[in-house]
Amino acid sequence: MSSSPPSARTRVKRVHERAAYDRATLHAVLDAGMICHVGYAFDGYPVVTPTLYWREGDAIYWHGSSASRALKASQDLEVCLTVTHIDGLVLARSAFHHSANYRSAMIFGTARLVTGDSEKLARLRAMMDTLYPGRWDALRPVSEQELKATRILWMPLDEASVKIRTGAPIDDEEDMADNVWAGVVPFRIGFDTPVPDPTTEAAGRQAPDVTDRLTTS
Amino acid sequence: MSSSPPSARTRVKRVHERAAYDRATLHAVLDAGMICHVGYAFDGYPVVTPTLYWREGDAIYWHGSSASRALKASQDLEVCLTVTHIDGLVLARSAFHHSANYRSAMIFGTARLVTGDSEKLARLRAMMDTLYPGRWDALRPVSEQELKATRILWMPLDEASVKIRTGAPIDDEEDMADNVWAGVVPFRIGFDTPVPDPTTEAAGRQAPDVTDRLTTS
Ligand SMILES: Cc1cc2nc3c(=O)[nH]c(=O)nc-3n(C[C@H](O)[C@H](O)[C@H](O)COP(=O)(O)OP(=O)(O)OC[C@H]3O[C@@H](n4cnc5c(N)ncnc54)[C@H](O)[C@@H]3O)c2cc1C
Ligand SMILES: Cc1cc2nc3c(=O)[nH]c(=O)nc-3n(C[C@H](O)[C@H](O)[C@H](O)COP(=O)(O)OP(=O)(O)OC[C@H]3O[C@@H](n4cnc5c(N)ncnc54)[C@H](O)[C@@H]3O)c2cc1C
Ligand code: HEM
Ligand code: HEM
Repeated sequence: MSSSPPSARTRVKRVHERAAYDRATLHAVLDAGMICHVGYAFDGYPVVTPTLYWREGDAIYWHGSSASRALKASQDLEVCLTVTHIDGLVLARSAFHHSANYRSAMIFGTARLVTGDSEKLARLRAMMDTLYPGRWDALRPVSEQELKATRILWMPLDEASVKIRTGAPIDDEEDMADNVWAGVVPFRIGFDTPVPDPTTEAAGRQAPDVTDRLTTS
Repeated sequence: MSSSPPSARTRVKRVHERAAYDRATLHAVLDAGMICHVGYAFDGYPVVTPTLYWREGDAIYWHGSSASRALKASQDLEVCLTVTHIDGLVLARSAFHHSANYRSAMIFGTARLVTGDSEKLARLRAMMDTLYPGRWDALRPVSEQELKATRILWMPLDEASVKIRTGAPIDDEEDMADNVWAGVVPFRIGFDTPVPDPTTEAAGRQAPDVTDRLTTS
């Protein structure tokens, strides 16, 4: 599956046949989700912060408060940003071979600040477009104060690895006849019926159709 | 919601009214999931590894290969283990107030090795019991070689914080009449129909009922 060589640190060693390093596979894993976990060092200990992300081309972005510790502390420092989808549980004939089906991406790099009002606005618009195409223009403009309160970080997708497990359990030959169910229990992730804010309902507005874009988290 | 005081580093600062520090809330967040993200330092840079976990009392466990870099490098070192559930997308009247509903836990501590064959077996059994009650006894015993190939780490739940957002969007008063849908789109996470391994199906065995235990990941 790999098309470009991994760096020293993104070379997958454990079950390496599950690895991929090409952009298309990486983009697909990133575009299927919206939450990542960003790891950074603070005061000498590791911190892992869950946050939303979005991809634009070969860069990944995340945002929060200008006063956020995670965003301030990781700016211009090395971070590891991991995106994970669990697709199923794998039940084997032996305890040892139980597993999970998954797709995950690890991106290494230095987190950089997005600066300049128009640049920040363009990135936030892209975030909105990723989740809710068309919604940005229906909303009142972002104020100067709101923009000031917001910090956006980004990182190129230059150093990344993907690891994917699919399919049935892989059992030892001598266990195949054991009297135990084996197979995969797939996860099913989707959206439930939108719950309108009471005042919205009163005005009879239509919920946006978000279920098209996202079928997994 | 907090019943015991947070440590200096687990005190939530951003939107701190969403914080909890009591054991019951922490256990509930952990017991609703199975995947965590473990952050550790390797060669001076942060790494965030997705992995399964399980809880026993006031301790959290995770496992993998004895040769795993993540497990070897983090043993006896400080780690941050984060568990995250996304419960919904929150659509506000302004871009700024868009949000997500979520439950998350961050646990800080030193990762410790589980040693001794009987201790390791007991922990793996507990892992299996957590996901598939009753299944352990239906499987052939774990071999000595399999046990040797397996590393289990654990950490007490002594230093942990929980952060939870629920409910409707919180909009600015002056935006309430804007002509835009606002509300929450809840996530729905569950299991799909189990897919038996062909040889299992042939033998006409019954899929285990895992859908009872887990409704979210
Ligand atoms: C949902 C889920 C559940 C998992 N559960 C477990 C578990 O219970 N036990 C277990 O041992 N492993 C589990 N894994 C796999 C785990 O993430 C690691 O791949 C594995 O533990 C090997 O770790 P390592 O540090 O030895 O990796 P190495 O192969 O030594 O890592 C070297 C490099 O490979 C790349 N890499 C490693 N893992 C991943 C990954 N997951 N995604 C993308 N790139 C990667 C990174 O660039 C890393 O720097 C799970 C993965 C997912 C997505
Ligand atoms: C699904 C999801 C999506 C999120 N998306 C975003 C986003 O897009 N932008 C954004 O700014 N924030 C987001 N958050 C919240 C984010 O995780 C942080 O809480 C927030 O960014 C503040 O970070 P901080 O470093 O300033 O926290 P601080 O409040 O300074 O952190 C201090 C301490 O509080 C505790 N703490 C902080 N955050 C959490 C947490 N999430 N769970 C448990 N304990 C915590 C930890 O012990 C931490 O050491 C999201 C959270 C979840 C679960
Ligand atoms: C409910 C039971 C279990 C589940 C769901 C489970 C799940 C997993 C998953 C998802 C992985 C990662 C595989 C990968 O990197 O693609 C893994 C790795 C591993 N598991 Fe388990 N496991 C279970 C029980 C066990 C038991 C009982 C043992 C030992 C007897 C064991 C030993 C291992 C080992 C050694 C690895 C590392 C594989 C490698 O990196 O080469 N597991 N497990
Ligand atoms: C699709 C659009 C957006 C989504 C889904 C979204 C989601 C989120 C989430 C989940 C948080 C974390 C809140 C918490 O800690 O509980 C957050 C924080 C934040 N967001 Fe957004 N956001 C969006 C757009 C924007 C925009 C357009 C701005 C700025 C104009 C913005 C500014 C902020 C700020 C400043 C915070 C920090 C809040 C704090 O810590 O006090 N967001 N966002």
